[in-house]
Parts: sequence; C-alpha cells; structure tokens
Amino acid sequence: MTNYELIHQFEKTRAHSVALCAPLAPEDYNAQPVAFASPPKWHLAHITWFFEEMILRKYDENYVIFNKDFSYLFNSYYQTVGERAARSLRGAMTRPLIEEIYSYRTYVDQHIVALLKSKLSLEIETLVTLGIQHEQQHQELLLTDLKHTFSFNPLHPVYHEKFNLVQDTNNEEGWLAMPEGIYEIGHQGDGFCFDNELGRHKVFLHDYQLSKGLVTNGDFIAFIAAGGYQEFKYWLDEGWSWVQEEKITAPLYWIQKDGTWFSYTLAGLKPVDVDAILSHVSFYEAQAFATFKNMRLPTEFEWEAASEKFNWGKRWEWTYSAYVPYPNFKIADGAVGEYNGKFMINTMVLRGSSVATSEGHERNTYRNFFHPKYRWQYTGIRLAK
Amino acid sequence: MTNYELIHQFEKTRAHSVALCAPLAPEDYNAQPVAFASPPKWHLAHITWFFEEMILRKYDENYVIFNKDFSYLFNSYYQTVGERAARSLRGAMTRPLIEEIYSYRTYVDQHIVALLKSKLSLEIETLVTLGIQHEQQHQELLLTDLKHTFSFNPLHPVYHEKFNLVQDTNNEEGWLAMPEGIYEIGHQGDGFCFDNELGRHKVFLHDYQLSKGLVTNGDFIAFIAAGGYQEFKYWLDEGWSWVQEEKITAPLYWIQKDGTWFSYTLAGLKPVDVDAILSHVSFYEAQAFATFKNMRLPTEFEWEAASEKFNWGKRWEWTYSAYVPYPNFKIADGAVGEYNGKFMINTMVLRGSSVATSEGHERNTYRNFFHPKYRWQYTGIRLAK
Amino acid sequence: MTNYELIHQFEKTRAHSVALCAPLAPEDYNAQPVAFASPPKWHLAHITWFFEEMILRKYDENYVIFNKDFSYLFNSYYQTVGERAARSLRGAMTRPLIEEIYSYRTYVDQHIVALLKSKLSLEIETLVTLGIQHEQQHQELLLTDLKHTFSFNPLHPVYHEKFNLVQDTNNEEGWLAMPEGIYEIGHQGDGFCFDNELGRHKVFLHDYQLSKGLVTNGDFIAFIAAGGYQEFKYWLDEGWSWVQEEKITAPLYWIQKDGTWFSYTLAGLKPVDVDAILSHVSFYEAQAFATFKNMRLPTEFEWEAASEKFNWGKRWEWTYSAYVPYPNFKIADGAVGEYNGKFMINTMVLRGSSVATSEGHERNTYRNFFHPKYRWQYTGIRLAK
Amino acid sequence: MTNYELIHQFEKTRAHSVALCAPLAPEDYNAQPVAFASPPKWHLAHITWFFEEMILRKYDENYVIFNKDFSYLFNSYYQTVGERAARSLRGAMTRPLIEEIYSYRTYVDQHIVALLKSKLSLEIETLVTLGIQHEQQHQELLLTDLKHTFSFNPLHPVYHEKFNLVQDTNNEEGWLAMPEGIYEIGHQGDGFCFDNELGRHKVFLHDYQLSKGLVTNGDFIAFIAAGGYQEFKYWLDEGWSWVQEEKITAPLYWIQKDGTWFSYTLAGLKPVDVDAILSHVSFYEAQAFATFKNMRLPTEFEWEAASEKFNWGKRWEWTYSAYVPYPNFKIADGAVGEYNGKFMINTMVLRGSSVATSEGHERNTYRNFFHPKYRWQYTGIRLAK
Ligand SMILES: [Fe+3]
Ligand SMILES: [Fe+3]
Ligand SMILES: [Fe+3]
Ligand SMILES: [Fe+3]
Repeated sequence: MTNYELIHQFEKTRAHSVALCAPLAPEDYNAQPVAFASPPKWHLAHITWFFEEMILRKYDENYVIFNKDFSYLFNSYYQTVGERAARSLRGAMTRPLIEEIYSYRTYVDQHIVALLKSKLSLEIETLVTLGIQHEQQHQELLLTDLKHTFSFNPLHPVYHEKFNLVQDTNNEEGWLAMPEGIYEIGHQGDGFCFDNELGRHKVFLHDYQLSKGLVTNGDFIAFIAAGGYQEFKYWLDEGWSWVQEEKITAPLYWIQKDGTWFSYTLAGLKPVDVDAILSHVSFYEAQAFATFKNMRLPTEFEWEAASEKFNWGKRWEWTYSAYVPYPNFKIADGAVGEYNGKFMINTMVLRGSSVATSEGHERNTYRNFFHPKYRWQYTGIRLAK
Repeated sequence: MTNYELIHQFEKTRAHSVALCAPLAPEDYNAQPVAFASPPKWHLAHITWFFEEMILRKYDENYVIFNKDFSYLFNSYYQTVGERAARSLRGAMTRPLIEEIYSYRTYVDQHIVALLKSKLSLEIETLVTLGIQHEQQHQELLLTDLKHTFSFNPLHPVYHEKFNLVQDTNNEEGWLAMPEGIYEIGHQGDGFCFDNELGRHKVFLHDYQLSKGLVTNGDFIAFIAAGGYQEFKYWLDEGWSWVQEEKITAPLYWIQKDGTWFSYTLAGLKPVDVDAILSHVSFYEAQAFATFKNMRLPTEFEWEAASEKFNWGKRWEWTYSAYVPYPNFKIADGAVGEYNGKFMINTMVLRGSSVATSEGHERNTYRNFFHPKYRWQYTGIRLAK
Repeated sequence: MTNYELIHQFEKTRAHSVALCAPLAPEDYNAQPVAFASPPKWHLAHITWFFEEMILRKYDENYVIFNKDFSYLFNSYYQTVGERAARSLRGAMTRPLIEEIYSYRTYVDQHIVALLKSKLSLEIETLVTLGIQHEQQHQELLLTDLKHTFSFNPLHPVYHEKFNLVQDTNNEEGWLAMPEGIYEIGHQGDGFCFDNELGRHKVFLHDYQLSKGLVTNGDFIAFIAAGGYQEFKYWLDEGWSWVQEEKITAPLYWIQKDGTWFSYTLAGLKPVDVDAILSHVSFYEAQAFATFKNMRLPTEFEWEAASEKFNWGKRWEWTYSAYVPYPNFKIADGAVGEYNGKFMINTMVLRGSSVATSEGHERNTYRNFFHPKYRWQYTGIRLAK
Repeated sequence: MTNYELIHQFEKTRAHSVALCAPLAPEDYNAQPVAFASPPKWHLAHITWFFEEMILRKYDENYVIFNKDFSYLFNSYYQTVGERAARSLRGAMTRPLIEEIYSYRTYVDQHIVALLKSKLSLEIETLVTLGIQHEQQHQELLLTDLKHTFSFNPLHPVYHEKFNLVQDTNNEEGWLAMPEGIYEIGHQGDGFCFDNELGRHKVFLHDYQLSKGLVTNGDFIAFIAAGGYQEFKYWLDEGWSWVQEEKITAPLYWIQKDGTWFSYTLAGLKPVDVDAILSHVSFYEAQAFATFKNMRLPTEFEWEAASEKFNWGKRWEWTYSAYVPYPNFKIADGAVGEYNGKFMINTMVLRGSSVATSEGHERNTYRNFFHPKYRWQYTGIRLAK
C-alpha cells in the first residue's frame, strides 16, 4: 500500500468515529450503567490511545505524550502496558471533558499522518492497519454500548431517526446443501486479518444443510408463544439457570404492551416487525430455539465453508463452536499479542458481521466471540440440519 | 411568615443550588460510580420534583405536569408516590439534558412563586418550608456525592480552588464538664424541624465530659502509626470485618506518597494538614479511635445537652447513639411521613453540621444518621469521657 | 460459694449439655447448612474448649492439652487466642468423631473438678462461673441451631416428642401502666452477670404502658390476612427490603397447606395454635406488627423497669433499643473482654428469656442481642404504648 | 448379555460402592462444605434412587416406593422427574440415617435382581447397564468429593493408608508423532457408551506430536519457582482473574511448610514426590503450564486418534476442546436424555480416566467434562506440539 492510500484509510476511519458521535450531547458521552459496555468518550479516547501507545511512542522519537494520565484512563486490558483504571469506573471519569478528547484525537492524528508521510515501514503499516481495524471494532461497540445505555432510559432516547438497524428482512429462503469433504478454513492472502484467523488448516465436514435466511421475529414470537422460555427441555443447563435468574422472557430490548411487542432501537421504541430478522439473542436462546425447531446451530467451520453461497452480514450469527485456537495458532509478542488469544475460553464463536459493523470490516474468516449470555450485539440465528 | 419572606427564602435556596453547579461541565452532571451517591443532575431535578409532587400537584389546580416521566426518574424513595427508577441507574439517564432540567426548575419556580403570592395557607407554608429544607439537605449531598465521584478520577479534578473544606482547625481545647441531672432533649419552639426531632422529652444523664475540640489529622495519624488499623482489639467486630474486607488503611480520600499523606479535596489533591480537623471517617473508625485513646464517643443526648457550651458545625460528629425514635415519635400521614422514621434501624446518629451544610440548615437538635460504614460526608470525632 | 456448690453447678450444667444431645444420632452432630448456626458437635466441643483455654491452661500448671488442633477447630471468635477455622466450615469437620468429643469433655471435666477441689481462688471461681453461663448460652443455641438445620429437611425430623416449645399461651392480659420517673437500670448485687449489664445507672422514663401478654399466633395471622407483608407503610425501609429480597410471607418455620398454617417444631410439623404465643419473628416483623397495631415496641429500659410486674420468660422479646454500651461500660482485659462489647453495633436488644433458655440462666437485667433480621431464636413481641 | 452376567455386574458394582464406604464413620456421611461436592450418603442414596426411578417404577408393576420423600431428597438434576432439594442443602439432610440408606439399597437391590431374573428385556438391560455406569461415575465422585471435604480439616483425616492415589510415575517418555489424515472419532461397536460419544464421525488432523508421559510434580514445581502464577502472559484472561481472585499459588491440596511442598491425600498429608504425576490442576493451570513450556494442550480428537499408542488412565487429561456435540448427536427422550447434552456449554473435555475411576469404566472414547476452574478430580496434563 502507498503512503497515501494508508493515510486515506486512516483518515476515513478516524472521521467515521467522529461522525458516529455527531448526534450526541456532552451528557451522553460518560454514562456506563453496566461494566461490560463502555461510554462513548472512553471508546473515542481508547482508539486514539492505541495509536499513541502502539505506534507513536515507539516509532516517532520526537513524540511528546499528550497527557501521561491517559494511559491509565484509556488502556483497555493490555496488562503488558501497565496499570489501568477499573473497567467498571470508565463512566466515572467525567474529566477530561469531551472537548479535550477531541483535541487528543487531532493531536494524535496529526502525528500519525506526519509519521506515515515521512517513514512508512512495513512494521508501521501493519500496526496502523491494526489500529484502523481496532477502531472499526470499537465503532460497532460504541453503537451497541450506547444502545444498551439508552435502553435503561424510560424516555427511549432517539440516537438518530435513521438508525433503526433491526428492520431488514431476508432476501433468500430455503436450504443450502453442502457435500461432505475436506474444506480449508482460515484466512489466506495478503489482506488484513486478526491473529485468530490464521493457521489456515483443513477440516473434514460431513454432509450438512444451512438455512439461507435467518430466523425472523415472527419465528421467535412463535417460540415465545409456545412457552419456549418456560420449558427446560429446550435449554442447556446453564441457559436454563440464566433464564431463571435473570427472569428472561424475550429478546433484549423487547417489551410487551397490551399484547403487542415493541423493541427499543437507536431510532426509539418501535413495534416489532414479524418479518424482520431477529436480533439481540444470547447463544442460550439461539440454541434453545434451534432445539425447539428440532434443528441445530451450525459450527463455525460449516458456516465458513458455505459462506460464499448465502447472504450474510445482517447479524452476528451464533455458531455451536467454542472459541478455541486453530492448529498452529501463534500468539504475537508484546502487547499486540494480547489481542485475541487470551479470550479463548468460555466464549462462543459468532460468524459474519452485522448492520452495525463498519464498512470494510467484514470477512468470511472473521471470528467474533462472546460469552454465551451476551445479547447487546446485533446477534441472530441461522439454523442448520 | 409573610408571603414575601417565604418567597425570598425559597428563591435564595433555589438560587444556591444553581450556584453550586456553576463550576460543572455537562459531562459532570451524570456520573454515578456507586449506588449511594447520586449525580448532580439527579439532585437538581429531584429537589424540583419534590415541589411539583408535594405542592403544585395538590394545591395548584391549573398546574400542568412539566413531564410525566420525571416522576419516575426523579422520585427518590417515596413508595407512596409510585414506581421509580432504580437508584443505581440514576447515572444512566443521560437524557433529559441538563438544559432541560434547568427549564424544569424555572417552570416549577414560577408556579411556586405564583402560588405563594396568590394563596398562602399554613399547609402550603409548611410544605414549602419542608421543600426548602429538603433542598438544603440535597445541596450538601450534591457536594459530597460529587467529591466522591471525582475522587475516582486520577486527574484529581478541581471543583473550585476555594472549596478545600477540610482545612479548618479547632479554636477551643480542653474538656467541658457536665453535671448529672435531667435534661430536655428535642426540638421546641415554632421554627422548622424534622419529625425525628419532635417528642421533646427528658433524659437523665450521669456526669460526663466532652472534648471542646475535635480530633485532628495529626491525632489520627498517630493512631495509624501505632498500627490502629491492624489491631483488632480497638474495633467492633463488624468494624474489624469492614477493615479487612475493604482493606481500609486510612480515612477516605487519603493517599500516601513517599511517606507523606495527601487527601483529595474539592480543591484538588492537597497535603494533609496535621493541625486541621479530621474528616471522612466511619463510625467504626471513630469508635476504634476512641477506644485506642481509652475514651469513648458521646451519646446524642450528651451532645445536645452540652451543645450550647462548645463550638460545633465543622463536622458531622458520630455519636454512640443508634437512630431510634424518641418517645412519642409520630409518623406523619402520606408521603411526607416517609421522610425519616423508616430509616430508624442500623444507622447511627450524627450531631452538629459540617462545612458543607447549607447556611441556615443547622440546629442543635438535628439528628443526622448514616450506616456506620459511610465516610463520604464530612464526618468527624468528638471524644467523651 | 463453696468448692462443692461450684462443683455441683458445674457438673449439673455439663450433664445438661450431654442430656440435650441424647436424642441425636452421629449423623446429626455435624450438619451446618447456614454459617450462623453451628452443629451440635461444635457446640459440645467449644464449651469444653472454653474451660480448657480460659482456665486449665492458665491455672493448672500440670495440665496437658487434650489435642492441640482443637483450639483451631473449636475457638469461636476470640481473636486474642489465635487462628480459628472459618465459621462456615464448622460443619465440614467430620473428624474428630463425636466419641472423641465426649472423651474430651470427660478429660476436661476431671481436670476442672480436680482444680476446683484443690485451689479455688476468686479468679478461678469467676471464670468457672463464666464458663457455666457460657455453656448455658450454647445450650440454647444448640437447640435453636439444631431446629434450624432440621427445618430444611422435608422429613421434618422429630428431635423429641416433648420438645414442641411453641405451645404456651399467655396467662395474663391487659395493660400495665408505669409512671414517669427516674429508674435504675443494670445489674446489682453479687450474683453473676455479663459485663454488658454492668454500669448500673439511672434513666428517666416518661409514662408508658406495656401489654401483660405477648402477641399470639392468632394476632399475627390477622396481620398476615390484612396483607401486612405486602404493605410497605408498616415496615422500616431495611425491613421492607428484607421482605422483598427474602420473599418473607410468614414467621420462620411456618408453612401453609390448603389454607391451614403449620409450623415446624422440635416435635415435628404441628398445626399453628392461634392461642399460643407467637415465635420466630425478626425485629423487622415485630416492628411492622406494632406499627400495624398503631402501637410500638418497648425500649429495653421500659422493659427492665417494669419487669417485676409482669410474667416473662417464654420468648426473647424484641425491644426498640439498639445494643449500645451503658454509661461506664468497661471492657475486661484479654480474651474474656471480647465477650460482648464488640457486638455493640447494628444489633437490637432482646429482653427476658425463652422456653429454650437453660434453667438458672434468666435475669431481668440480661441483654441479649441479635441483628434485626434473625428469627431462629424463640423471639416474640410485647407491645407498648 | 445373559441375565446372570448382568446380575453379576450389577451386584459387583453395588458391592463396590458399599466397600468404598467401609472406612467411614457415620459423621463422615453428611458433610458438604461446598455445593459442587456431595456427601457420601447422598451419593449412596442417589445411585440407588436412579434404579428405583428409572427402572422399578416403570417396569415392576408391583413395586412399592421405599419412601416417597426420597425422590425429592436424592434426585440430582433431572428436571423431568420433578422437584428436588437444593444441591447445596444435601449436607443438611442428617436424616434419613445412614442405616436407613443401606436398607434402601438392599430393598432396591432385591427388586432389581428379581426383575432381572424374571423378565429381562433389551430396554431393561440398557437401563440397568446405564445405572451401573452411573453408579461407577458416582463412585469416583464419592472419593473425590470426600477428599475435598476432608481437605478442609486441619487434622488431615486418613481415609485409608493405601489410598494415596497420587504416587504413580510415568512409565514412558518421549514424543509420539502422528501423521496428518482423516481419523474416525466416537464410539463404535456394541459395548456401552454414553450418548455424547455417539455420532461416530471423521475429522481431519494435521501432523501433531503428543508427549508419552504426563507432566510431573517436579515439572510443575519448576513452573511455580519460575513465577508462573505471577506472570499474566502465560494465562488466559479468565484464568488470570481466577488466579487473582482465588489467590491460587499451587495445585489444589498442596501446602508449603518451611520450603517443602506437601499435599493432602486420602492417605493423609504426604510430601510431594517430584517424580510422581501431577494432579489436581484446573484447565487454566494446564493451559498456562503448556504456554510456559511453549507447547500446547492436545485437542480431544488428537488424543483419541492416538490413544492406542500411549499409556493413559492415571489422570483425567485436560484437552483444549470445548465440550460441544458431535455431528448427529441425538438427545434421548425423557429423563435419560438429560444425561449429558445439557452440559455442552462452558465446559472443557477431559480424556482418559484416573486412578479413582472404577474398574471397567474407562474407554478411549469417553468424554468427561468440567468447567475449566475445577480441580478436585484427579486431573493432569499431557503436552502436545
Ligand atoms: Fe480495544
Ligand atoms: Fe430527597
Ligand atoms: Fe461461645
Ligand atoms: Fe447422578
């Protein structure tokens, strides 16, 4: 890639983060009602800190740290890089003010662009590309975290009238049949990928079929109406405990008024469209629904092997594959190496991408992963049999 | 009181709340890292809601509710008045924006003033006075809650250079001896008081002595240096568990750097002045310190009986009196009756007032109360023997 | 007291503990489903350890410790005496076997009796008397803890057919009026008392009335039927949270079958007798019931001042007095000093004694104390007005 | 199988459970300090209840339930079969006495044998075989649960002098190289297996090597000495939290005295033999150790494919395979169907068997599974590369 192509990509990505925050008032930047969802200000600062910490500190010898406390405030989980504020306290940091965060962004942007103009090595290109991908990841989280925070508010705040995000319908139906055989799995080629996609390798798959469309709201309402949440036989043991303890009776953000289902969206509270694609379910719910239908969820290998033969990209699709390393998976040295490998336990793989994923961030080898209980991403269900 | 006197008091109190928020940026209005400390926006709205709910809705027949969702958002604990948002979620409410809260305040103020001009009954005067006192209480909480929130921030935010609040020293020393006898306790006269001060009654007190000065930082540093936090014999059993579990080693907001004690104040991080009066200790610490000194804490009756003979008002002073009803304590009917009585269990009485107490809010019959573990108020220690 | 009187008292008390365990099988000696209730084996060993630790180790120079691990196993809370097993793990100690505990008892008994025969000092007499009183306290706890453990068992184990303990009725009715005046409170005379009863002092009491009888099951069923557990206005705030979180709908051990109330007793499951005296209520319930009746609970001073004029001894009676030190309360030196004073926070005083109290252990100056939530003692309600 | 072969197997298995309890005193049968480990009495009764519930109630029309409360007391997790006592309360059930449990066993044994003599159908044979396997599983749990309970006791109880169980050494060394290719995985043939082993299927494996020996205590002491528990880079994120929160510094049951490692065994406290095979580590520790060695854990497929070429059976060997269903996994109908499938989330597969596994219970297709934090089984580590 040329300097200018990379600078262009960098600036476009950086601008997109700012654009996503345009509808926000200063009051919206801090709130953090739950530990797992971070406030917008933290995301904005953290993705900037990543460029400062991983690139400018190492490759720009004249670089002066913008504010030495920011490393403590805006580090996420990189143990290598030293102390960091408790995750659950991100919302407590009313200072620095948002204005200062924007100054921080500008400062770092200028230095990155100057660095890219002056001396672009492969090492720097790799790290800047990682920083861009990292920022795109946080763009999606910024939206989903914000939706989660807004959802507690009885005023049902409207982020933007055009950001409903849960109104798409399927444009394919029926089943895709795949023959048994050896398939290659994992990233290949020169393009960017995360470390967890590497170690391209062969798997043997038996015959299988995948649904071309995703489960719809109407399909899931039928499950609810049939007493699906009250019938332990559809649930994994841990899922059943989750349903009981959390008193789960519907997908996240759904509320029922006088017999009608509504769901909170970034465009405000909206009636649930039975034809639209279901969103915001946990792995437990996905698995229970599949069992209810006498079907199953695909594995991540089945998904990837067939991924060029169906449409995807509307929802992160739960698979019945735990997030474990590929053969020959290698952890990178240093802080970058903390990126993915250390989460390879008690999380399930989601494949595809979602309506909230930043453009250019999707790949059919992408391995997203969450604990099976989480629902605040735009998650959905594709059935297999 | 005439209409105009009451209107004057009302407006003065209302203006003071706004003045206290002058140093704040919009980002500061929301944050709530712990459930027991509410964000400034909530305080500002809640004290306004009190006037709307308790007075305008009942006595102004033409009054139109400013926003029907505010009752849910800004009710505190009045079960009589219906549903309310979970206390721990106050910080999640990024909307309404702070601007709208100020509009709400203006709207309610105009209606209260109009009401007071047109038809002042004793009932309304009583409730407006209660509302003023309630607002003053929340003014102190607004400051102490804000300090607590700011204290998590490694940037040590400065609320205002002049708001150190923990630099006062004692201006008296020695012991005040009080003779045994029957004393009258509780509020008398026409002035305002809370329901928990009523039921004026007699108590018999044996001879006792009270320290004229309060415990200083230097006194308490000696306790720390003597291993006070490591020696269970000074502590109540529950206090000892608290010290162990919470890993308590100093008063709240104190940090040690290279052997020197600093404390976070609303004027930023400051060295601890050994001559200044100690602040931010729990009842457990107060009681352990008294035991360490071979003395004791006074009872609330000893404090009140002697209160005209020493200076008070710098710190809320922990007493070894549990907060229980006075003889003939009566709970008022309706929501107002929820004010105090229902907290009369597992809380200890604090007497006096503090540097953060609003002017005109102090009384020597005032019974403040907190669970023995709390330290975020400006609490201090007066010894007795 | 002569040697022989003391030896007689000692042996009688020691034999009573053994007699209380006669109905138990070895399997019954260990179980501990909740941390606050200890298994019978632990009680039996702990009260023996007290004599060994507090007396034999100090006053019998030839004494050989029975088993050096027992101090770790059977110390209760005496921090002075060193490490002790976690309270919640008492039930995990299947060894030593119960047989060995009885050998331990015999061994210690022989040495104590020998010591008392050979050299009885006032110091030793005081400690042996304390040990006897301590054992009597644990006798009551042994019964109440056992009842609590048995209560989880759907087989409703019968400890003994004659140990119903909740069938007594009132033998007095009406109100006792007491005039205002100065009363003396606290222990006097040469007899044994605990340190918390000392510091005899004067209190001033206003006119008051006490019910001669205690609240009956029938009275309390009326409270339940009137929706008492669903009406927050009767409850202290903390009590209301307790009712909600613990889903409390009746006194402890009560269950309703087809509209009839039963209660688990040490004689098995029995119908609730509406005329019998209510038992097993928390302070929260006692206070809510009193509020429901437009009355109140007495203070411990009102109770003691009038205690010679009514019958008591069936139930530990909740008072609306927090357990705080009397004027001039002194903590004894050493381990014995840990006895009572360190619990003087967040506990409420109960007066009288109960059907489970060992004979000779009751005094009208006795100050029992528990956290307001506890109900597993034979607690009851006397109303005041 | 003939009637008599099956009866023989049944009786042999039943007798073995009783033999395992021979060293126990009645006091040992109840204790349950942690919810996940059940007391011996519960195991003995539960495995009997399984035969009563799954076979006698359905196939012996004259069968009279021994005690109708036992279903509530001794059901484990079968939701289909109705209410059951909370798992954490198993230790609270001092009744029925152990004697009665033995009567229950005898009663059920007689009826099963009679049934097998009179009418052996394939259905009954299948269920009796399942019951035998189920009892064998619980035999291992009985031992490991008992060890865990005993381990809290500072007396280090000796179950049996000959039951050290952690003294074996490796009898092979070096690496076994396996070529890439398609392997068949899962149970085949007529012998018994659990449902989770079925769905025999093909997998493709790349070249790999397995260590012929298991990690020894000496190997692991080197990890400890090198600061392995203090170095986050070896740990999965969740494992690192576990180490911090639980303050883990050594394998379970290890204690250090004056620089020497000891471990609690069923034969009492013993010095750790550096040549013996390591036991009682969590998946987190296994994975951290492998990372420390720059190697990895095998997958369950690698393990099974090579299992005939190395010795196994001393330790349950952690694999880096999550416990998920095989292709074409089918859940059986009814209560039996709850056996395995519902645990297929957030658990990791262990392969092989251990020194505590009952004879005849081991298979190279066996899929044992536990949450990655558990260590109370005889778990060990085989490295792969
Ligand atoms: Fe990040
Ligand atoms: Fe308020
Ligand atoms: Fe004791
Ligand atoms: Fe089982």
